[in-house]
Amino acid sequence: MLGTNSCHEKPEQNVTAGKPAFVAVDWGTSSFRGWLMTADGNALAETRGPEGMLHCATAGFAPVLADHLARLGGMQNLPVLICGMAGARQGWIEAPYLHTPTRLDALHDGAQRVDTQGDVRILPGIAQADAAAPDVMRGEETQLLGVTEPGFTGLVCIPGTHSKWVWIESGSVVSFTTYMTGELFSVITQHSILKHAVDHDAPSPAANDAFRDGLQRALDAPAGLTASLFSLRAAQLLGFQQQADGTARLSGLLIGTEIADAGSRYGTRHPVRLIGAGALKDLYASALAAAGFDVTIVDAERASQHGLTKAAIHLWGAQFT
Amino acid sequence: MLGTNSCHEKPEQNVTAGKPAFVAVDWGTSSFRGWLMTADGNALAETRGPEGMLHCATAGFAPVLADHLARLGGMQNLPVLICGMAGARQGWIEAPYLHTPTRLDALHDGAQRVDTQGDVRILPGIAQADAAAPDVMRGEETQLLGVTEPGFTGLVCIPGTHSKWVWIESGSVVSFTTYMTGELFSVITQHSILKHAVDHDAPSPAANDAFRDGLQRALDAPAGLTASLFSLRAAQLLGFQQQADGTARLSGLLIGTEIADAGSRYGTRHPVRLIGAGALKDLYASALAAAGFDVTIVDAERASQHGLTKAAIHLWGAQFT
Repeated sequence: MLGTNSCHEKPEQNVTAGKPAFVAVDWGTSSFRGWLMTADGNALAETRGPEGMLHCATAGFAPVLADHLARLGGMQNLPVLICGMAGARQGWIEAPYLHTPTRLDALHDGAQRVDTQGDVRILPGIAQADAAAPDVMRGEETQLLGVTEPGFTGLVCIPGTHSKWVWIESGSVVSFTTYMTGELFSVITQHSILKHAVDHDAPSPAANDAFRDGLQRALDAPAGLTASLFSLRAAQLLGFQQQADGTARLSGLLIGTEIADAGSRYGTRHPVRLIGAGALKDLYASALAAAGFDVTIVDAERASQHGLTKAAIHLWGAQFT
Repeated sequence: MLGTNSCHEKPEQNVTAGKPAFVAVDWGTSSFRGWLMTADGNALAETRGPEGMLHCATAGFAPVLADHLARLGGMQNLPVLICGMAGARQGWIEAPYLHTPTRLDALHDGAQRVDTQGDVRILPGIAQADAAAPDVMRGEETQLLGVTEPGFTGLVCIPGTHSKWVWIESGSVVSFTTYMTGELFSVITQHSILKHAVDHDAPSPAANDAFRDGLQRALDAPAGLTASLFSLRAAQLLGFQQQADGTARLSGLLIGTEIADAGSRYGTRHPVRLIGAGALKDLYASALAAAGFDVTIVDAERASQHGLTKAAIHLWGAQFT
């Protein structure tokens, strides 16, 4: 089994260890990340750039891929497996959504082969085609595959621009919910009156306390978000709070609103696998613990690499050995 | 008593009827509205412009006022009473906030006289200087005075960029809550991924249904706003909803979230006076009724005029007769 919790697994001692087997690509809306992978899931080399789907929709996908393959050492003969927005309708070619409930270990069945040089395939996203709770993901499904063992039952939280909470039962994605947490943080701090209530410089020494205050306020009264937002501004006007703490407090409010709602949908008794990176991962880990969740942290890039490797083994395993 | 529910009251048959007594000004962040008023609260002439506080903070307040007084017919000798952001710290002169609980019929005691030509005074705003629920208003307090009789007990809802819900007991403002409803609508439709989910052209024939759907979703699950927002986008991607209905649905979601939270704070058993204008007033009236509130509608400009008249009578009543 591929490890899920460590970035530094020991390569197995067999003939394929250390040998490039395929190229893994996470091709998002505004970024390209590619890795030269061994058959057992280790990244031998990495390439990254800003040529996401939005860029390539006009500039073309094939030249960008060729350029990155060259940067990986001219591995044009290896198969390439892609996840993410490159498979959207407005992407390279559409890899139509699988519909919930759907087994993660069957993701590769939905892969679409691109009509281009070499063997290039794109994994599908997952849709919740339910009129009462419509939702979609592209890219996260591959991370889910990466961080779950075949019979896994539990919750996965993937924070970000559009945070995902996913309920998985016996290895199948049963339901999920997307929260606009990161995007709201961005538009509110850039375009609303609260741009005067945050300080984009280094966080204040009291930022941790401010984050916890905002978090607790949201956990206690998640329906009050749109009032709590204005309250943040009023508290500064009246001298109760400092502008230097505004960013952390707003972050706590938005993350707390998400976690409170997810907790009421999915319950807090199941362990949560948190897929994240950097400061955001740390904020969520602390917030989830405060909300009573039992959390295991998984690095986001390793999750993508593991998921792509599992699917690649299904597609090309015979030629890897 | 000044009427609160009608835009067209009959002037009383006395000697002051029809005679200009003072100039009433609602001076907001980005607009100026002035009226030549009789002592019994009728507007004889009107002037309006885009020279709000933000404009005047650099261009100066006195010349803008002089210009509008000239447009009203050269009434430089009449006293002028101003409400709104002109009294903010960054305004013309600061009219410091009164603190809750505060009697509405004592608003005029907080009026600040401006060191300028003529008798020009600015009414104060109201602050809720409570560290657990800090909040501020400027301009709305004058509307509250305008729409309530001296012993009034009940709720007032003032929808807008920053919607206010105000609990008034025996003519005193006891507590209030501001919701960033209108501003969130604006930044989300202009700057988030949902700009692709709304259509700024004429509303679709099904807009009313879409508004009610969004409203009901928020009333049922107000803590889920940040998920419902993404869901709106996903529903269109999956073909469940139309882009033409996106604006109405988003509006329903945000207004419903506000009303659900206000209802849980203040209860739904008290009658609500709704101060509004135009399409927004109609949306709120329908939403409040759907949420079980008993609503009376008051025109926003008449509310400002009435409040300014009540305060003006306290300040200069002796010279009006």
